[in-house]
Amino acid sequence: MSYARPNIARIAGYTPGEQPKGQRLTKLNTNENPYPPSPAVIDALRNFPAERLKLYPVPGADGVREAAAELFGIDSKQVLCGNGSDDLLTIALRSFVDQGGGFAYTEPSYSLYPVLADIQGARKMPVALDKNFMLPENAAELAAGATLFIMARPNAPTGNSFPKERVSKLCREFPGVVWVDEAYADFADDNCMDLLQHFPNLVVSRTLSKSYSLAGLRLGLACAAPELIAEMDKVRDSYNIDMITQALAIAALKDSAAMRENVRRIRASREKLRSELQAMGCEVLPSEANFVFVKPPRPAAELFQTLRTRGFLVRYFNLPRISEYLRITIGNEEDMAAFCATCRELFSAGE
Amino acid sequence: MSYARPNIARIAGYTPGEQPKGQRLTKLNTNENPYPPSPAVIDALRNFPAERLKLYPVPGADGVREAAAELFGIDSKQVLCGNGSDDLLTIALRSFVDQGGGFAYTEPSYSLYPVLADIQGARKMPVALDKNFMLPENAAELAAGATLFIMARPNAPTGNSFPKERVSKLCREFPGVVWVDEAYADFADDNCMDLLQHFPNLVVSRTLSKSYSLAGLRLGLACAAPELIAEMDKVRDSYNIDMITQALAIAALKDSAAMRENVRRIRASREKLRSELQAMGCEVLPSEANFVFVKPPRPAAELFQTLRTRGFLVRYFNLPRISEYLRITIGNEEDMAAFCATCRELFSAGE
Repeated sequence: MSYARPNIARIAGYTPGEQPKGQRLTKLNTNENPYPPSPAVIDALRNFPAERLKLYPVPGADGVREAAAELFGIDSKQVLCGNGSDDLLTIALRSFVDQGGGFAYTEPSYSLYPVLADIQGARKMPVALDKNFMLPENAAELAAGATLFIMARPNAPTGNSFPKERVSKLCREFPGVVWVDEAYADFADDNCMDLLQHFPNLVVSRTLSKSYSLAGLRLGLACAAPELIAEMDKVRDSYNIDMITQALAIAALKDSAAMRENVRRIRASREKLRSELQAMGCEVLPSEANFVFVKPPRPAAELFQTLRTRGFLVRYFNLPRISEYLRITIGNEEDMAAFCATCRELFSAGE
Repeated sequence: MSYARPNIARIAGYTPGEQPKGQRLTKLNTNENPYPPSPAVIDALRNFPAERLKLYPVPGADGVREAAAELFGIDSKQVLCGNGSDDLLTIALRSFVDQGGGFAYTEPSYSLYPVLADIQGARKMPVALDKNFMLPENAAELAAGATLFIMARPNAPTGNSFPKERVSKLCREFPGVVWVDEAYADFADDNCMDLLQHFPNLVVSRTLSKSYSLAGLRLGLACAAPELIAEMDKVRDSYNIDMITQALAIAALKDSAAMRENVRRIRASREKLRSELQAMGCEVLPSEANFVFVKPPRPAAELFQTLRTRGFLVRYFNLPRISEYLRITIGNEEDMAAFCATCRELFSAGE
């Protein structure tokens, strides 16, 4: 017998990517940035007035919202801050989906989406990506009855992006909220931020975890029409962003040039890794993210283990349609060279 | 027309206590600690390795759970960390109360409880405290049909505590989860942590915001039987505690002696303030918290405004049963002396 709601009692919960302790492993499994955050962020930490921690933080993280709004060319009333974008996704379900209500999300995608549905007690309506892992043309039709539709663009774990026109089409045709999770958009050729002016039902979310090298800090940003933001703001915990995070996030957003430079290097490494793996006989999906999704010439599950014994931790998903792939985060130049050398050795030896 | 769920669209949301910007006001309105956090916390901040922020934090904040478990004399499997105790209260509703299900909470108490009920779409079942603001003997009976019962002990905004035997009685008689919000317990003569060994349906929550002078950091702790913690852990965001907060919280919990010394000073100031205000003709409830709840000899709403013009920000609640009271946070010795001098002047002048 459990004291929990039945929808909670029967689920296993979300399993985050492994954070190995102690072992000497090159971490290519959770899409962290290999480069340190901007020096401006480190300065903000060094100069943070610790005695101020006795006071509550600014409830709405106004300074962060203003810095983000300036960067994105929107109004600060169009920005909501989350304790990581996972917090924002949770707020999405709680704001827009009743218990028993329909929640649509692309599949395969971020494995947290169905877990959030279970927690909310929502009816799961996975919308299968097409054979090229693209958002289907008739996505709105497939999601009929849902009140929220979440997709990741670029998608994880596949790394590809969807034609922007298909996102617009979905916004026009779907009567509920369309949420584009742009966790990886800084690594992509385009993004959906400019669609906000056309669609009152669109939310575009970002995070400082990947491109800004701040996974340890927990800061997500949801951008939408002020009316949508106001509804989600009621659901947000008043003090969900702590005082230090606010100070560091403001510094990060005001020095986006540092982020851009890291992104440039990662994109260059990504294309290099892609062509090297292809030369070794891997199928590599085109990537707009800071990782590549790879179908190796031998069983992925077994290769995952072999790579681990060789000191490389990548991500393997034992899930329908993607169980023959590995997701490999782009590390720094040195790690990528070592990784390629190991793969070359493994594939040629047939080990 | 709103895209939000009806229960979200129709509510106003929670209004946190004012955080004044710019003005020179002595803040006695949000129960912050007037003393800085432990020097160990400040050292942990100064020594934090900023470049590590590029990585995700430890998902379950294991180090914090272990430090808390040691301090409380329980197992770390009995501890869950929240992004402030507001995050934990949200997790409580989401773990134990279905949409449309009954949620019982004491009234008057922390004004977030009914807001969380509205957000979850729960049926609100306020249980009125008796004429002395005590938990009623027949609380379980009054909460029949609910699956979660939350109370604050010591209570806010009244400051008093409840007989511990009444908490035990409720745990025995109520078939759902009993949650004792102990945000202020470090300022009290006793607490309910030892009841955990007797009741599998009891949760006791703490926060670093008040006694540990870390409101700006956001760290709450829920303690319960491992089975209850495991259910709530499914609902918790995996990375809800950022890396810096984990490091500072561990430092704070390991130096609870510094907290105890601040608590000692605050308790002494509290008793001094109480007797001075009583001498001025105020009715002052016995307090076990870091604030006093005061019925002044003139209208509270008007006194609130007058105090503000004199540089003191206190808290006024325009709510049934408590609209004749002011809640005054215990500041440092100097602020309390200045506050009492101002009150003396106002009351004698009849201003």
